[in-house]
Amino acid sequence: MHQYKAPIDNIKFLIDDVFKFEKHYASFPSYEDASPDMVDAILQECAKYCENELSPINQSGDKEGCKFKDGDVTTPSGFKEAYNMYVEGGWQGLSFDTEYGGQGLPQSLGLIKSEMMGSANWSFGMYPGLSLGAMNTIITHGTEQQKQTYLPKLTEGTWSGTMCLTEAQCGTDLGQVRTKAVPNDDGSFAITGSKIFISAGEHDLTENIIHIVLARLPNAPSGTRGISLFIVPKFNVGENNELLERNPVLCGSIEDKMGIKASATAVLNFDGAKGFLIGPENKGLECMFTFMNTARLGTALQGVCAAENAYQSSLAYAKDRLSMRSLSGKKYPEKVADPIIVHPDVRRMLLTQKAIVEGGRAMIYYTGLFADQFINGATEEVRQKGDDKLGLLTPIAKAFLTELGFESSNLGMQIFGGHGYIKEWGMEQNLRDVRISSLYEGTTGIQALDLLGRKVMLDRGKQLSLFIKEILSYCKDKSVVSNNPHKKQMNKFIVPLAKEAAKWQLYIYRIMLKVRKDRDMVGAASVDFLMYSGYITMAYMWAKMAQTAYEKIEQGEGDLEFYRSKIKTARFYYERILPRIDTHSKLMMTSPASLMRINEDQF
Amino acid sequence: MHQYKAPIDNIKFLIDDVFKFEKHYASFPSYEDASPDMVDAILQECAKYCENELSPINQSGDKEGCKFKDGDVTTPSGFKEAYNMYVEGGWQGLSFDTEYGGQGLPQSLGLIKSEMMGSANWSFGMYPGLSLGAMNTIITHGTEQQKQTYLPKLTEGTWSGTMCLTEAQCGTDLGQVRTKAVPNDDGSFAITGSKIFISAGEHDLTENIIHIVLARLPNAPSGTRGISLFIVPKFNVGENNELLERNPVLCGSIEDKMGIKASATAVLNFDGAKGFLIGPENKGLECMFTFMNTARLGTALQGVCAAENAYQSSLAYAKDRLSMRSLSGKKYPEKVADPIIVHPDVRRMLLTQKAIVEGGRAMIYYTGLFADQFINGATEEVRQKGDDKLGLLTPIAKAFLTELGFESSNLGMQIFGGHGYIKEWGMEQNLRDVRISSLYEGTTGIQALDLLGRKVMLDRGKQLSLFIKEILSYCKDKSVVSNNPHKKQMNKFIVPLAKEAAKWQLYIYRIMLKVRKDRDMVGAASVDFLMYSGYITMAYMWAKMAQTAYEKIEQGEGDLEFYRSKIKTARFYYERILPRIDTHSKLMMTSPASLMRINEDQF
Repeated sequence: MHQYKAPIDNIKFLIDDVFKFEKHYASFPSYEDASPDMVDAILQECAKYCENELSPINQSGDKEGCKFKDGDVTTPSGFKEAYNMYVEGGWQGLSFDTEYGGQGLPQSLGLIKSEMMGSANWSFGMYPGLSLGAMNTIITHGTEQQKQTYLPKLTEGTWSGTMCLTEAQCGTDLGQVRTKAVPNDDGSFAITGSKIFISAGEHDLTENIIHIVLARLPNAPSGTRGISLFIVPKFNVGENNELLERNPVLCGSIEDKMGIKASATAVLNFDGAKGFLIGPENKGLECMFTFMNTARLGTALQGVCAAENAYQSSLAYAKDRLSMRSLSGKKYPEKVADPIIVHPDVRRMLLTQKAIVEGGRAMIYYTGLFADQFINGATEEVRQKGDDKLGLLTPIAKAFLTELGFESSNLGMQIFGGHGYIKEWGMEQNLRDVRISSLYEGTTGIQALDLLGRKVMLDRGKQLSLFIKEILSYCKDKSVVSNNPHKKQMNKFIVPLAKEAAKWQLYIYRIMLKVRKDRDMVGAASVDFLMYSGYITMAYMWAKMAQTAYEKIEQGEGDLEFYRSKIKTARFYYERILPRIDTHSKLMMTSPASLMRINEDQF
Repeated sequence: MHQYKAPIDNIKFLIDDVFKFEKHYASFPSYEDASPDMVDAILQECAKYCENELSPINQSGDKEGCKFKDGDVTTPSGFKEAYNMYVEGGWQGLSFDTEYGGQGLPQSLGLIKSEMMGSANWSFGMYPGLSLGAMNTIITHGTEQQKQTYLPKLTEGTWSGTMCLTEAQCGTDLGQVRTKAVPNDDGSFAITGSKIFISAGEHDLTENIIHIVLARLPNAPSGTRGISLFIVPKFNVGENNELLERNPVLCGSIEDKMGIKASATAVLNFDGAKGFLIGPENKGLECMFTFMNTARLGTALQGVCAAENAYQSSLAYAKDRLSMRSLSGKKYPEKVADPIIVHPDVRRMLLTQKAIVEGGRAMIYYTGLFADQFINGATEEVRQKGDDKLGLLTPIAKAFLTELGFESSNLGMQIFGGHGYIKEWGMEQNLRDVRISSLYEGTTGIQALDLLGRKVMLDRGKQLSLFIKEILSYCKDKSVVSNNPHKKQMNKFIVPLAKEAAKWQLYIYRIMLKVRKDRDMVGAASVDFLMYSGYITMAYMWAKMAQTAYEKIEQGEGDLEFYRSKIKTARFYYERILPRIDTHSKLMMTSPASLMRINEDQF
């Protein structure tokens, strides 16, 4: 069974050396508490909690699953105790507003907390993760009274929250939502309808659950423009924030799923439950989507978490398992056979995982910088810039990293051979758990449409061109190249990166031209365009990491083997992962005819 | 829940029109019974059995799993009844020697039977599948007395068989086998040791189980050259084939696995069990591997079976599920939204599955022609030629089709969105079940080494060059191109196919040169080389299918929409799947340095 070990060295390499969080945090007045010492202390404490409390109940949680009986859900053994420690540690409010009991620390730091928790036990992390979605919605769109009523307990963690969007007939296409909200005399609404796939919709971890629910007012316009947002507490809340009667929002069942079995996925039946309008009438979808990017970035993490687990386990196994001899001669003649890590194909699988997990983590942390700007930027201009960049990077991170996280988990399992298929080792759970990540919070196809249709086409490529310019100017930056003592070494990254980034720009123009002639080009090109974009973004991250490693080696500081490993992994990425863009770029320029010419009856 | 429907039209298209089995069978004296009418009747009967008996217990079998208690294994509800019908139908002996109770029908027909059974219920199919491995071993290497003792009951299906290779410390590297065989006074041997991962190792379907076991004689040479093969029955067998006392080969436990849960994977403890040497001393591995190719081809089927299931289910869902509108304008304005099959990215996923399942089936049936030659060829020369071609195609089919079957299953699930993650729909079971296929019977990495190291390098590329010549002469064949009324239409397949086949030949030479300088090149290039080879082989199949479809359309025979669908799918394959070889060919020519330069400690 896999025991998670937080990769503190890799995390600190990114935040201290590559992205220089200290300097970044200094530009936010509200982040004055986020000193390097404070950040370090939080990382250490969080690692301890995740390694000692969450990781040990990950496999047992999968085996036991959640139990449903008479409307109640029981989480697996140990979950309640671990959640209580989470509340006691004040973890839920880490990056939340101090006015409602939070610690006001950076969003990017919250992401690192989520990463560690998610690697140790993704199912567990779902409960506080969903709460955060509800908290963000209430703080942005709620009245002051709503904030005072719900946020302190949510921030404390003694209450939790959910996001109730999906219904049986619609997930992506929320314009089909049928749940009704009928005004009561007291200004509240009676909510009636059935919601499915509600993560953390019912459980035994908290005293109360605050549901954020999409529903239709009477006579609301049809489609997406007639949906409003409501707060529906499991227990109604009195004037002094005390719990009153049970609201008729009942859990009808929980889903029997492929994975994340310790996370309760509820069917919730609202039977005239008392709800409170939040945000303007009929603007529910806009309100719900304010934090869509941050929620999706949180899901992107799942790919990195699963890849980290797969890599940690399969690396240990590859060093331990003895099988066959190296084709280039025995490497461990004293053993009955060589450990499988000597075999080139096993190394290919390990390095693929390593390149993905470290490159993926860099993508998340880099994107986190813009989440900081979006949420805590001091001026509207900073917040807007943060939102724009976040909006561009999020669909890439969400779809690309969850797809690659699945690939890594699959390779991790493959390294174990037949043993990977046996539950005992934890590799198959890791694969089952991560599989949800490219489905929920918008499938890979939906992320790809968001990227190409909305973030690129609607914007006429402006945001993406800005990002490409950033990469190109990085490649020309004298401090990276000419003045760098490692100028020549960096060229093997900078030269192809500049070339590919320039091509990226050209492809956008060509796709835009093609779309004008055929709207189906958007959907036909979207997923390949997204994957292509992901590989270039990750190449940018690997160039930055290699540059930092060269500088550190030059300075003779720290663990030189660690930095050499970074450079070798960067080279692997450029030599063996980046070439995947050849196929993606060809496919994304292929005519939609190859998809559209077949009739529905000919399938 | 998915209900399997045997794709008889697609099967008959391949055997009647593309590969012309009737003519092929006529060249075997022993296949005189395999008349078209007989073949048709068998297909229909088999389809009925699979659809009505095996498919309905597939999902319940997964849910219930096998139960282990006090050394006994109980298969899930309905398995015993379905197995009895299998025995009554005489299915086990379909392609087996008439001398021992079989029907002597072609191997290729047996493959189609296995395909239908495997699609309907892969776990169920494991039991008779393993028996066939034991039967093949006994008929080839056993004494006449051993054949008379074991084969009639095995062929009948009232006894079953296993292959006991793996031990805890070794799967791939069988030279590490430790199980001991000590001579008894009566000419038998006392077998002692522990075997793991024994499919069908213990169950309640048959009266007796005949284990074929790898073990070491006293003073045998170490490594692979000191392993012998033994027959170890669960119940010893008397002179009149009656069951005697229980042999001390006991099931210690069964594995808790990711999938194929209705197939019992046993730990077998041999505690001085009575065994009988089969084949020459110390030649056990060679004997065991006589039928390695046919066993692996049977496993390759699993990829096709899973892809078929995924495609059938996700196609129905894509036509039914209403979500969003086509970007190129509403297609079903009378509905609340368009069915998702209108969306280009959903079509991409459906067509990928369709291209894989139909192209994969063609690869299996094509390879089956050589299995016929190898096993039932009238002359040694035919048998040798069959073996050579089978040996070349098998690792490609096994690794490539199981990897693509996994991809298809994954895409099938993706089309369902979040619903795909819920057990009810059967899509996640399909993905869990197929995942084993690239692990057992030699992992993808092992198949790739077999292909590049053994079948290409050791052979100096001779067999592969013959296959490439076959493809090139197909491309130049006047009846395919110049004389063909569809000459121009076929060019879009023939031209790229000829180009890629010629490049394939060049790559082999270049890889051989590189391997001379660096032995690690074999392992570094192997998996990409195998996948590359798979895509070209499948392109050859799609060209043949398109050609046949054009001919049928020209003749105005049969279901013209069916043939048009084939041509459109072939075009999809060439436009959107085949381009994957760009990346694989680049990677397979990349220096092993990118894999080998990193030290073990730097991982």
